[in-house]
Amino acid sequence: MNNFNFYSPTKILFGKGEESNVGSEVARYTTKVLLVYGQSSIKKNGIYDSVIKSLKGSNIAVIELSGVQPNPRLSLVYEGIKLCKEQDVEFILAVGGGSVLDTAKAIAVGVPYSGDVWDFFLGKKALEKALPVGTILTLPGTGSEASNSCVISKEDENLKRGINSDVIRPVFSILNPEFMYTLPAYQTACGLFDAMSHVLERYFTRTKNADLTDRYCESTLRTFIKFAPIAINDPTNYEARAETTWASKLAHDGSLSCGRIADFGSHKIEHELSGLYDVTHGAGMAVIFPAWMKYMYKQDIPLFAKFAARVFDVEPNYENLEETALEGINRLQQFIKSIGLPTTLAELEVPTNEFERMAKSATSNDTKTVGEFLKMTSKDIIAIYELAK
Amino acid sequence: MNNFNFYSPTKILFGKGEESNVGSEVARYTTKVLLVYGQSSIKKNGIYDSVIKSLKGSNIAVIELSGVQPNPRLSLVYEGIKLCKEQDVEFILAVGGGSVLDTAKAIAVGVPYSGDVWDFFLGKKALEKALPVGTILTLPGTGSEASNSCVISKEDENLKRGINSDVIRPVFSILNPEFMYTLPAYQTACGLFDAMSHVLERYFTRTKNADLTDRYCESTLRTFIKFAPIAINDPTNYEARAETTWASKLAHDGSLSCGRIADFGSHKIEHELSGLYDVTHGAGMAVIFPAWMKYMYKQDIPLFAKFAARVFDVEPNYENLEETALEGINRLQQFIKSIGLPTTLAELEVPTNEFERMAKSATSNDTKTVGEFLKMTSKDIIAIYELAK
Repeated sequence: MNNFNFYSPTKILFGKGEESNVGSEVARYTTKVLLVYGQSSIKKNGIYDSVIKSLKGSNIAVIELSGVQPNPRLSLVYEGIKLCKEQDVEFILAVGGGSVLDTAKAIAVGVPYSGDVWDFFLGKKALEKALPVGTILTLPGTGSEASNSCVISKEDENLKRGINSDVIRPVFSILNPEFMYTLPAYQTACGLFDAMSHVLERYFTRTKNADLTDRYCESTLRTFIKFAPIAINDPTNYEARAETTWASKLAHDGSLSCGRIADFGSHKIEHELSGLYDVTHGAGMAVIFPAWMKYMYKQDIPLFAKFAARVFDVEPNYENLEETALEGINRLQQFIKSIGLPTTLAELEVPTNEFERMAKSATSNDTKTVGEFLKMTSKDIIAIYELAK
Repeated sequence: MNNFNFYSPTKILFGKGEESNVGSEVARYTTKVLLVYGQSSIKKNGIYDSVIKSLKGSNIAVIELSGVQPNPRLSLVYEGIKLCKEQDVEFILAVGGGSVLDTAKAIAVGVPYSGDVWDFFLGKKALEKALPVGTILTLPGTGSEASNSCVISKEDENLKRGINSDVIRPVFSILNPEFMYTLPAYQTACGLFDAMSHVLERYFTRTKNADLTDRYCESTLRTFIKFAPIAINDPTNYEARAETTWASKLAHDGSLSCGRIADFGSHKIEHELSGLYDVTHGAGMAVIFPAWMKYMYKQDIPLFAKFAARVFDVEPNYENLEETALEGINRLQQFIKSIGLPTTLAELEVPTNEFERMAKSATSNDTKTVGEFLKMTSKDIIAIYELAK
């Protein structure tokens, strides 16, 4: 087991009606918030009214910033930073899915900084402080509600880049599974596979001897496999929404990295799809991750066989573990299809003649490798795109 | 799944050599600490010198309070509070096992309070603030390094009482598995069974539908079952010390209660043994918990059968799940014996003619029930003591 730091200070309020506590939670920090959200859906389903009522009840003044889109744009982040500076806002409250939460985090990073917030995303500047962020989640998947991550797209350059720092972990997050009842099947599936991919990126590691973290990863994956189909087919099933919402939080709060090196190479490979072709991230991961597995499994057949046996209940062929490993990849692809997600780039309408350009972008023109399980070069990445065609 | 709050802000620094960071961690808060520890063992094994060196390196002044004993005494807590008030100390650093950590927490609670700190333990006063506490663990088990709990004995009345509040969660905890190398086998076993009991108290719940938390509980128990015997028989096995130390933290940081009501009735029944007869808590739990299970299993045979199958790999007898449930209890007792712990009150030299008095004490003279799985009265508690004879 490797040495590690683990720090996950986000207070979670989980369950029915917990949004009524948002006012009192915010009041611990401030009397004025920037409320960030997406489109009109939170007004239609009543969440907006509940949040405003609770905030008013605690005498919190509200400045609004709406219009966050999937693959959230840097331009809106700039707008939020400007608003906060003009109005002396010192707390960002996000109500929405991962794109809204990441927009809020980026704004929180930009307000106390005099330069261009994109500097942090380019690695030009070390991230040391941010305004506090609270969140109310309406779409599980990205794990942004408890993670140290934030991913933003710079639209004029087709770039999608992330930052990671404990200073952007939300101070509280409110997770009400009932808020997920109105999510369409495809959106639910994309979100939940994104969350599963956060576990998979951690499970396939070169670090030996992280037994308990392995078991937690397997437990989390099994919970998705059991409950994601129920959430999709029976969208108002409370238990299925609750289990998948909680699993999505645990998938990316850092606990499943403890003692091991996580990979996240597939995420970087997928970010090229989202950045260039506006692919929904979870659907992109559904295509890329099995291709990554097919390219990698020979590097550690026992690990991939363990995955098959302990996550998908494949009976091991002890005389031919490679067969077991391959059956695990097959089962994962069957599962992906069963929840209505694509398994090929063709289904995503990503062109197949741009792999070299995408690989160059992912590796910053061959100056960096991608991932940890294998430190991938452009050649490896192109091979994975080929396997995903 | 029930609604829940989850808040576990303790920063964990885990692994070899991490104690060298204690100075920089403390320096985030203060320039002067009360260093609380037990006997001379941390001086013999070099931990004391490493800690002092790191603190001095960060210009932290150190006031010392040593002499913490197992089942930590209120009198020493009073002494620590007095020292802090006299010397304007605003941070408590604990180096030791659960007794040292709990002493530090109780001092942290007492310093900002003008009355008698025991008021909080008697429930006379609500706990709202405490000084920050940092810890360096030398014996895994109590989970105090990340828990909201603190248990203190009032020696002149033979009372052992606990408090629970998020304000006493440590701000950081340093867990170096190498520090556990010198622990004797029996002390290791007592600590680790205490930690296992924290999981068991949560696993046996009336709450249905907390699937992922169930799986995490089972994963944590399986890790103890696999690695506790290795840690005991091969005390310098790093992986075994690391897995059991990490599992002990997770067992009691609150994550395994998410979405369910935990019981902790057995803990209260055991506290009478420790309070009256100075029994080591983990050894007391090893005797009490299986007796509790024998008394309770008929209330929910499927749950106890699931425990047997998923934790101890008992092949279920689907036509007679009661047999499976009983075999799970049997396997747990076999495991307890295998790590050198007692399974009867006789082995603990607890007299068998005081059960009524002990039950009265646990129920505050029959004014309160104990536990949640079944709200136990004196009659139930006496029956459990009888089963533990």
